[in-house]
Amino acid sequence: MTQTADTASTQRLDRQLAFLAEAEKLKGVVRATPVMDDSRFENSAEHSWSLALWALVMADQAAPEVDPVRAIKMLLLHDIVEIDVGDVPIHSAGGKAHDSAEIAAAEDRAAERIFGLLPADMAEDFLATWREFEANETPTAIYAKSLDRAQPVMLNLQSGGGSWREYKVTWTQLEDRVGCKINRGIPGVWEAIKARIFPWFQDNRRV
Amino acid sequence: MTQTADTASTQRLDRQLAFLAEAEKLKGVVRATPVMDDSRFENSAEHSWSLALWALVMADQAAPEVDPVRAIKMLLLHDIVEIDVGDVPIHSAGGKAHDSAEIAAAEDRAAERIFGLLPADMAEDFLATWREFEANETPTAIYAKSLDRAQPVMLNLQSGGGSWREYKVTWTQLEDRVGCKINRGIPGVWEAIKARIFPWFQDNRRV
Repeated sequence: MTQTADTASTQRLDRQLAFLAEAEKLKGVVRATPVMDDSRFENSAEHSWSLALWALVMADQAAPEVDPVRAIKMLLLHDIVEIDVGDVPIHSAGGKAHDSAEIAAAEDRAAERIFGLLPADMAEDFLATWREFEANETPTAIYAKSLDRAQPVMLNLQSGGGSWREYKVTWTQLEDRVGCKINRGIPGVWEAIKARIFPWFQDNRRV
Repeated sequence: MTQTADTASTQRLDRQLAFLAEAEKLKGVVRATPVMDDSRFENSAEHSWSLALWALVMADQAAPEVDPVRAIKMLLLHDIVEIDVGDVPIHSAGGKAHDSAEIAAAEDRAAERIFGLLPADMAEDFLATWREFEANETPTAIYAKSLDRAQPVMLNLQSGGGSWREYKVTWTQLEDRVGCKINRGIPGVWEAIKARIFPWFQDNRRV
């Protein structure tokens, strides 16, 4: 019996370590947003750290129904599917690529494969957490998605325009693709962000 | 009264956003550990993401007294002081630089400055969390520190040696500087890691 328990415990740890080794690949997934000094593009691992930190700092801006700890978990996991699918920039293909059914299906397969490396109970839990985030229906998912839209906006401002330059984004496009989603989860934060970024769009004649 | 409340709320949000903007600098702090394909060095922001993920995945390996959510918070915050002080590699200066009193004092000043950007209640909370991690005395801090030692070891193995090559680390040095700390918080994980990395030290005649 002890030996069987030991074997099960070893196998569990094998799977945990295999998943963590696989997750290291996220550091090689490049996003459309440059880092603040514009020297290189951000990768999805460091972006995920930023978002977990946003969730920690902005918890008091969330609706009372939001579970802030679950939001952190969602944001630590949310981009891991990009190991297989890559990052799809919000403003690419005229804003149409990001939410396509084809990409959603590919990301779901990636989630099954990658979370499937974990012990079964953990795989099921992480997959459910990731799918809740993607569905964007529960208060916690809506809050987490808002943060996922807010951080790149503030980072673009820091780098002097970032992906707004690359994709020639107008103020209307930004409000449609990004602003309305930030507003859904953290309306007070969107007001504060708007006041900070609107001058950039005015200065660059994108209004 | 409403106007005063509004002003207080705006000032709070200003400070939250100022802290998050400052935290972006962590993506520019370079560590001694290369990423898995050995193409560049890891930065402290993506390292912090890895650690929060380790804390999520390894929670069932922690002692029962550990608060796994607090561990995630510690690990999201633990390296932010490096914005001012830089990363001090474990194996640099013959293993003596990392825990020097001088660096500890500089890091404490950095924590006061950077967390001090936040609203006062949050600044106090984050500073206390960071100091608990640094003191390495509570079960949660011991667990979090163990993860902070474990992830670079597994990443060095993935990249074919990483900072062990750079600093010509021997098996005895690794056990002294790293292994004993991993063993303190997650002994079962250290057993599993040891079995995986010992062959590298044998193959490279470092045993």
